[in-house]
Amino acid sequence: MAKEITSRAQDYSQWYNDLVLKGGLADYSAVRGCMVIKPYGYTLWENMRDQLDRMFKETGHVNAYFPLFIPKSFLSKEAAHVEGFAKECAVVTHYRLKNDPNGGGVVVDPEAKLEEELIVRPTSETIIWNTYKDWIQSYRDLPLLINQWANVVRWEMRTRLFLRTSEFLWQEGHTAHATKQEAIDETIQMLNVYATFVEDYMAVPVIKGVKTESERFAGAEDTYCIEALMQDGKALQAGTSHFLGQNFAKAFDVKFLNKENQLEHVWATSWGVSTRLVGALVMAHSDDDGLVLPPRIAPLQVVIVPIFKGDEEKGMIENAVAPLMRELKDLGISVKFDNNDNARPGWKFAEYEMKGVPVRIAIGARDLKNNVVEIARRDTKEKSTVPMEGLAFYVKALLEEIQLHMYNRAKKYRDEHITSVNTWDDFKTVLAEKGGFISAHWDGTAETEEAIKDATKATIRCIPLNNEEDNGVCVFSGKPSKQRVLFAQAY
Amino acid sequence: MAKEITSRAQDYSQWYNDLVLKGGLADYSAVRGCMVIKPYGYTLWENMRDQLDRMFKETGHVNAYFPLFIPKSFLSKEAAHVEGFAKECAVVTHYRLKNDPNGGGVVVDPEAKLEEELIVRPTSETIIWNTYKDWIQSYRDLPLLINQWANVVRWEMRTRLFLRTSEFLWQEGHTAHATKQEAIDETIQMLNVYATFVEDYMAVPVIKGVKTESERFAGAEDTYCIEALMQDGKALQAGTSHFLGQNFAKAFDVKFLNKENQLEHVWATSWGVSTRLVGALVMAHSDDDGLVLPPRIAPLQVVIVPIFKGDEEKGMIENAVAPLMRELKDLGISVKFDNNDNARPGWKFAEYEMKGVPVRIAIGARDLKNNVVEIARRDTKEKSTVPMEGLAFYVKALLEEIQLHMYNRAKKYRDEHITSVNTWDDFKTVLAEKGGFISAHWDGTAETEEAIKDATKATIRCIPLNNEEDNGVCVFSGKPSKQRVLFAQAY
Repeated sequence: MAKEITSRAQDYSQWYNDLVLKGGLADYSAVRGCMVIKPYGYTLWENMRDQLDRMFKETGHVNAYFPLFIPKSFLSKEAAHVEGFAKECAVVTHYRLKNDPNGGGVVVDPEAKLEEELIVRPTSETIIWNTYKDWIQSYRDLPLLINQWANVVRWEMRTRLFLRTSEFLWQEGHTAHATKQEAIDETIQMLNVYATFVEDYMAVPVIKGVKTESERFAGAEDTYCIEALMQDGKALQAGTSHFLGQNFAKAFDVKFLNKENQLEHVWATSWGVSTRLVGALVMAHSDDDGLVLPPRIAPLQVVIVPIFKGDEEKGMIENAVAPLMRELKDLGISVKFDNNDNARPGWKFAEYEMKGVPVRIAIGARDLKNNVVEIARRDTKEKSTVPMEGLAFYVKALLEEIQLHMYNRAKKYRDEHITSVNTWDDFKTVLAEKGGFISAHWDGTAETEEAIKDATKATIRCIPLNNEEDNGVCVFSGKPSKQRVLFAQAY
Repeated sequence: MAKEITSRAQDYSQWYNDLVLKGGLADYSAVRGCMVIKPYGYTLWENMRDQLDRMFKETGHVNAYFPLFIPKSFLSKEAAHVEGFAKECAVVTHYRLKNDPNGGGVVVDPEAKLEEELIVRPTSETIIWNTYKDWIQSYRDLPLLINQWANVVRWEMRTRLFLRTSEFLWQEGHTAHATKQEAIDETIQMLNVYATFVEDYMAVPVIKGVKTESERFAGAEDTYCIEALMQDGKALQAGTSHFLGQNFAKAFDVKFLNKENQLEHVWATSWGVSTRLVGALVMAHSDDDGLVLPPRIAPLQVVIVPIFKGDEEKGMIENAVAPLMRELKDLGISVKFDNNDNARPGWKFAEYEMKGVPVRIAIGARDLKNNVVEIARRDTKEKSTVPMEGLAFYVKALLEEIQLHMYNRAKKYRDEHITSVNTWDDFKTVLAEKGGFISAHWDGTAETEEAIKDATKATIRCIPLNNEEDNGVCVFSGKPSKQRVLFAQAY
C-alpha cells in the first residue's frame, strides 16, 4: 500500500532520504552532486521564496541579477575569500565542442580555450563588488540594498539531497553603506528577518548568534547565524548574515565621496539562505509516516478524499464538496479534491500522509446523511468528526492551530536539548547520549575549538546574541572564560 | 540636465544601447557577453515572469528545477540537437583551483580534471528527458506538464544587451504526452499563451507562424513562433514552441505502457521565452526621450512630482498627496511620490521620461488652490489639467487607455510594414527602402531560402498560421509556390 519508509530509530539518515524521494520533493540526477527539485518540492521552495522576497522588499531591498561566471582573477582579489572557495570551484575552460576527427564523438575543441578561466559562482561578492565600483560615487548612491535569487555551485565531495548539493538555489543579499554602524545594523536586521521567517513560517525555532573566527564566512569580519536543531540532536545552520567591513570595498577599490567631500571606502554586508532550508524543514518536523509540513508554506493545505460505493454516492459527495471547495478557496486556503477512481481511500490517506498535507477531510455517504466530515490533522494524527456547517472557518482556524502546535512542539524539543555542562566528561557523555546543543565555557582560542572538534566532531555553532556574562573555566582547557557558547554536532 | 540619448534617426543601435543603460535596465559586466540586470530592469522582468507564470499554472503546468550542468555525452544523444548547440557551449573541465607552486596566484588544479566534461545548459531537453525516463512508466503518468525558470548559456560571439547575451534568463517548458495529437495541441496552446502575453501585457502585436526546416529548433519536428516588428523595420522572434515528436523519447529511451498495455515512445514539446523579450519591449515602443513602458508590466506606473517654493508649500502638497497615494494603491496601482529635495522638477520630469513611467502627475501650489493636477502621459507626451476629485479612478482608466493606445500604435506600424511583393526587384527595393515584413511567394526549397538570405540578409521569419492558399511563383526562382511566407531582416 504505502511506500515503505525507513524509521527514524532504524536509520535516521535513510529515513531522511526516503522522505525526500518518496515525498516527491527531489530526485537524484545524472550529474554527480546535483539534484532535481521535483514539482512538489519546488512549490514548497516557491512558497518559501515568495514569503522571503516579500520580507526583503518590505525592508527596502530590490532584486537584480549578476553573471553566473566569475573571472578567476576576481576571486583572488580578496585573500580570505579565495582561500575559502578555491577548493570547490567548477571551472569553465572552453567555449566550444567539436566532432572528434578520430571519430570519438563530440569532444572539447582545444582551439576554443578561454584566455582566463571562468568560475561558476560559488557566491557573488566579487562580481558584485566589481560592479558596485561603477555604481557608487557619492553618499547619495548609498545605501545600495540589492538581493539576487540565483543558483550557485560549490563542488562538494559528499552530498545530501537539499542539505549539501554541488548546485543549489539561494538568495544572496549584497548591500553597501556609508557607515560601519549602518552596515552592522543591516546585518542584524537581515538576521532578524531570517529568524522571523524560519520561526513564523517554517515553524522551526532558531538561536541567533555570532560565529567564532574559524567558522566565519571567507572574507567577513563577523558572521551572524541562526541555528536550528534537528530530531536526531544535530544542529543545522539555517541562514547567515555577514558584516564584511570594508574588505570587499578595498579589494575592488569601491570608494564614495562623503558629505564632507572626502573619499572613503564603502561598508558592506552579505546574507543568504538556500534550498538547504527545505532539508531543515523535513528533518525538524517529519515522522515515520512521512513529511509533516507547516500550513503557512505547505504546497497543499487541505485534501478532501471521498469514500463511496457506486456512482450515486460519488455524485452526492461531489455535490456536497463543491461549495466547501469554494468557501475554502475564498478564505485563501489551497485545497484539492481527490476523486481519482484509480486509487482506494486507504492508499490516498497514506499518500497524503507521506506528502505532509496538514489537513485531510474524508467524506462518506453516512457522513453526508449526518452532515459531518472526518478531519485528520497531520501533525498529531488526531481524527475528529466535525459538522459541515461552518467547516471552512473551522479548517482555517485548525491550520493556524497546526502551525502553532508544530512550532511549540519543535521548540519544546529544542529547549529540552540545550544542556549546560561544566566538565569535559559531562560534555562527552551528553553529546554521546543525548545530543543537542551543549552550553559550555570555552577559553576563546581556535586551538581549543579545534581540539574539541577533533575529539567529538562537535563545533561551536554560535556565541548566542545577548549572551549573559558568566565567569567560569573552559570545559576543555580549564582556562578562564567569560561566557558560555553553544556546541553541537552539525549538518 | 537629462542624460543624452542618441536619436533613432541618428543611430538606431546606439539609441537602443543608450536606453538600456541610461534607463537603468542593464549594465555591461566584466564577463564577456554577460550582462548585469539592474534593479529597474529586473523588476520589469519579474512583472513579465510573474504574469507568464500565472498563465502557465492556469494551463495546468507546474514548476521544477533541473541541474545547471549536462554531461557531454547527453548532448550527443540527439544528433540534430548536438549539431545545433555544440559550437556555443561553455564547458566545465575542472572542479578545483589551487595556489600556483610557481607563485603565479591561483590556478586550475590539473589533478582535479573531470572524467567527463560538463556543459553549462544551453537548453535542458537532454537532462530533462534523461530524468523523465525514471518518471514515466504508464499512461497514468502522462501528461507531464513541467516548466523551469532558469539561466542558460550559449556562447555568443556578437552580443547585444538583452537581445543576445551569452547568459540569459528564461523559462523552458518540457511536456510529455501519450499521443502525437495531444503534443501538437500543447505546442499550439503554449504558442497562444505567448501571443496573448506579448500582445495583452507587452502591447506588442505578433504574427504566429511556423518556421521553415532550416530555422527549426535543433531536435524539433516543428518549431512554431511569434514574430514581432521593431521600429527600425527588423523582425524579432519573441517566443518559440516546439513539437519534438518522439525524437528525445527515442534518444533517451522513454517509453510508457499505453491503455492497451503496449510499450510506446512518449511524445514531447518544449517552449520558451527569455529576457530577450525585454529588448523587444524597448525597441517596439520607446522614443528619443527614453523608454516607453506599457502600464500592465511597468515597474512603476505613476510618479507624483511636487513643485513648490519653501517648506510651507511643500507641506501643503504632501498633505494633499497622501490620500491620493492611498487611493491609487488601493486600486492596485504602483505609485511613487518623489519629494527628493536634491533634484529640481525639470530634472525629475526628464528622468521619469527616460525610465518610461506611463503617467506623471505634477502638483504645484497654484494647482492645489484650484484643486487640480497636471497629468502627463508618457506614450503621447500629452499634458492635461485634471480635477483632484475622482483622480485615482481617472488615473486607473488612463493607464488602461495608454496600454491600449500603445498596442494600437504598434499594430498600426506593424500592419503598415507588411508588404506584399511579386518580383525580386520589388523585394530588394522594399527591404532596402521600407523594411518590415515582406510577404512573398517561395518555392519551398532550402536552396532558395539560403540564396535570398545571402543576397539580402532577410530570412523567412515564418509561414503564418492559417495562411491562405495562394498560387503563384517564387519571387526568387520563379518556380511554382502555393502560399506566401514572411521574410524580414531580423534580430
